[in-house]
Amino acid sequence: MLLNCDLGESYGNWTMGLDDQVMPFIDQANIACGFHAGDPQVMARTLKLAKQHGVQIGAHPAYPDLQGFGRRSMPHTHQELVNMLHYQMGALSAMARAQGMQLTYVKPHGALYNDMMASDKIFQAVLDALASFPETLKLMLLASGDADSYRATAKEAGVELLFEAFADRRYLDNGHLTPRSEPDAVLDSEQVLAQVKLLAREGVVITRSGKRLALNPDTLCVHGDNPHAVAMVRQIRDLLPR
Amino acid sequence: MLLNCDLGESYGNWTMGLDDQVMPFIDQANIACGFHAGDPQVMARTLKLAKQHGVQIGAHPAYPDLQGFGRRSMPHTHQELVNMLHYQMGALSAMARAQGMQLTYVKPHGALYNDMMASDKIFQAVLDALASFPETLKLMLLASGDADSYRATAKEAGVELLFEAFADRRYLDNGHLTPRSEPDAVLDSEQVLAQVKLLAREGVVITRSGKRLALNPDTLCVHGDNPHAVAMVRQIRDLLPR
Amino acid sequence: MLLNCDLGESYGNWTMGLDDQVMPFIDQANIACGFHAGDPQVMARTLKLAKQHGVQIGAHPAYPDLQGFGRRSMPHTHQELVNMLHYQMGALSAMARAQGMQLTYVKPHGALYNDMMASDKIFQAVLDALASFPETLKLMLLASGDADSYRATAKEAGVELLFEAFADRRYLDNGHLTPRSEPDAVLDSEQVLAQVKLLAREGVVITRSGKRLALNPDTLCVHGDNPHAVAMVRQIRDLLPR
Amino acid sequence: MLLNCDLGESYGNWTMGLDDQVMPFIDQANIACGFHAGDPQVMARTLKLAKQHGVQIGAHPAYPDLQGFGRRSMPHTHQELVNMLHYQMGALSAMARAQGMQLTYVKPHGALYNDMMASDKIFQAVLDALASFPETLKLMLLASGDADSYRATAKEAGVELLFEAFADRRYLDNGHLTPRSEPDAVLDSEQVLAQVKLLAREGVVITRSGKRLALNPDTLCVHGDNPHAVAMVRQIRDLLPR
Repeated sequence: MLLNCDLGESYGNWTMGLDDQVMPFIDQANIACGFHAGDPQVMARTLKLAKQHGVQIGAHPAYPDLQGFGRRSMPHTHQELVNMLHYQMGALSAMARAQGMQLTYVKPHGALYNDMMASDKIFQAVLDALASFPETLKLMLLASGDADSYRATAKEAGVELLFEAFADRRYLDNGHLTPRSEPDAVLDSEQVLAQVKLLAREGVVITRSGKRLALNPDTLCVHGDNPHAVAMVRQIRDLLPR
Repeated sequence: MLLNCDLGESYGNWTMGLDDQVMPFIDQANIACGFHAGDPQVMARTLKLAKQHGVQIGAHPAYPDLQGFGRRSMPHTHQELVNMLHYQMGALSAMARAQGMQLTYVKPHGALYNDMMASDKIFQAVLDALASFPETLKLMLLASGDADSYRATAKEAGVELLFEAFADRRYLDNGHLTPRSEPDAVLDSEQVLAQVKLLAREGVVITRSGKRLALNPDTLCVHGDNPHAVAMVRQIRDLLPR
Repeated sequence: MLLNCDLGESYGNWTMGLDDQVMPFIDQANIACGFHAGDPQVMARTLKLAKQHGVQIGAHPAYPDLQGFGRRSMPHTHQELVNMLHYQMGALSAMARAQGMQLTYVKPHGALYNDMMASDKIFQAVLDALASFPETLKLMLLASGDADSYRATAKEAGVELLFEAFADRRYLDNGHLTPRSEPDAVLDSEQVLAQVKLLAREGVVITRSGKRLALNPDTLCVHGDNPHAVAMVRQIRDLLPR
Repeated sequence: MLLNCDLGESYGNWTMGLDDQVMPFIDQANIACGFHAGDPQVMARTLKLAKQHGVQIGAHPAYPDLQGFGRRSMPHTHQELVNMLHYQMGALSAMARAQGMQLTYVKPHGALYNDMMASDKIFQAVLDALASFPETLKLMLLASGDADSYRATAKEAGVELLFEAFADRRYLDNGHLTPRSEPDAVLDSEQVLAQVKLLAREGVVITRSGKRLALNPDTLCVHGDNPHAVAMVRQIRDLLPR
């Protein structure tokens, strides 16, 4: 099980995330592509940092909404989604290759990620964008218990999937995350480490109601926004063989 | 001598240029990359149109300034120029390859083009961007009589040049264009055709003062903004063997 | 019954609408405020044109989405809506007062207009934005047969309403417009003039099913996008006393 | 002598500046207007904070360049400058009045500020923007020893000036600031407090070469970007009677 983290989310004069502190402890860097965060300078800097630490890189494309940080859903047609994904993936891919690196996967950001998980049409558009992209990239999405169904659809499109679980979120029986509006949505540090251990050993989480749920994730999403988050990543790293 | 034209300069709901009318008559489409014009939808549509007509495609990157249409000079460091060029070139390149096409050249737009011609530093940054880009692309720039000097600098960077002349502009003795502020800056239709003929046969223009100046351009810049411009392109096309 | 028209929807180097041709024939200019169209130059020019023709001016604010022309719904909190409306209304108001004019009303644009008509919460946020704005402005919205209910809500907020009808759209029995996806959604020229006449004399439309529906609009929305639309506006103008 | 500080420079999800920590100690808040920083939410929040602390508010307008944080010079015509200033000033003014506050001054930001100090034409455009704005606002600019000349030009335009000095910058004999490229451009804490004391008592600075230079500033520019800067502001505040 690998560790992935959203990075490169600074923009111009604004800094976000402790990228240089968290990069040494992760395996996969999801790099913003300029639509919700990340300008060309930030992207180049983040790629360089990933290279220094031998971290895999993935595109982290989003709806075109800097002000809303890509967290506002915006209607797009199928073709608009394919084109805007190609644009962002292509921009980052070229910058990566200019530094001698290759993208290996794509993880949609924010509202686009949520829409992809909630709508078959948008999932299909994302798959089509990957299938028609000139490089072979995997799609990272939420491990939710429905893996077989997602995998079947993706297989038809010729796209491989990477399922991610969340280290710090409490799962419902249906494999979805407890909404953040609920008081127990986010786990405390001890619970996080317990959840990570169980995921690493058995691919399983204990849900809110106490059931065992098999997620078998390929990768675990961690955060690097603040010193506490970075400290957690270091502890999680220690639990996982590299 | 080929014909090149700036295309794909619509944006969202705004239309600019008679792209579908001029595309059949040109050899090289300079396609906007989203920073001064051209969103992903417009880019995909323009690429498709170029493919239908077997037209070569080049990236037409610009300063990040939609409101000013890339016509306002904006200071950038060397590294910022390289990164923002990679970003735009990469986005268009991926979209082209997704349609089975390959970029062959880059022509900077507007203020970036002018700055590149006026500043050795910016010319060098553009060359470095092309040299470090993961595909081999030529750089299109102004044929100004100084070809040897530009070619020598470009050769050191490992970049091939394409020199372009202007069909409709009156040249000064030093190979620069008569500024648009002058009353005789722009040629009338008859003068355009005479200038094109002479360029096609001998690679030469008659300057404002009546001298012969060798430009030996690889390509001629034409316009497709309005019906009159398109009509001129058709007449110019008839003068040139394909 | 007045005539209102969306104007000032050019942006930077892109032109949209025949503003100077339609302005002489309308009573109310809905002026874009920079979020979906209209930069400060376009806004100043449009205001000047309205002044020359003695046309009332209203703010035409939108979601922050140039690429989507404000036609994509984007979630906003109540407070976000109030603030973004104040921003846009304030910018246009100051530019108007700098030219000796006063805004008299606000008509939300595109997706924001539709969302306001579909959601009580968004209608309430728009009302609150107008009620807390430092000038007293009316709100223009769709005359849909539900006038009393809208008017009651608005009255509580202390906001006056202006109901608008559409000259060229076929109405359903419930006062809504036949969706554009239907083949008979848009009226032909003759039908437009008949609908305008009936609205002017009796405040009534004949719906798709043949029923009479009282709309009693204060104003009629017309278009100035193309020569045909402008010609229609001139014919409509001739039907209405000024 | 008052204390002024640039505030409201967060944007969307990005935070900049310790606004709530520095606001209690300043007299004048220069509030970003959305072109280089500050979205409508940030503006409303900053205005509210200024109101809570009884701080005067001024517009802090900039070139339209989020990515460059308004620090890149961009050519504008006279009329473009007037219009873009009216737009930004109007937006903030309306939001202020909606909270029961009034703008009292304008301080251009970044490259626009520098251009205004370096170019008579841009200074004149800024004055014209203030003179034609529907509210009477003062213009804040650099106290540079040339006060009489600036004041005479401003008087003709009917605009009052507020001269600001910098607490932490070393002055040259001509009243300009030692460029940041020089090693001794920025004063240490002790020097800052000495400079503030002398400015407060006698309106004078000791220049780099050891001369006394009369600046007689109306206001002193301080910073609130980081804990050290805020600590300095508290110490400076203690030196100045309120």
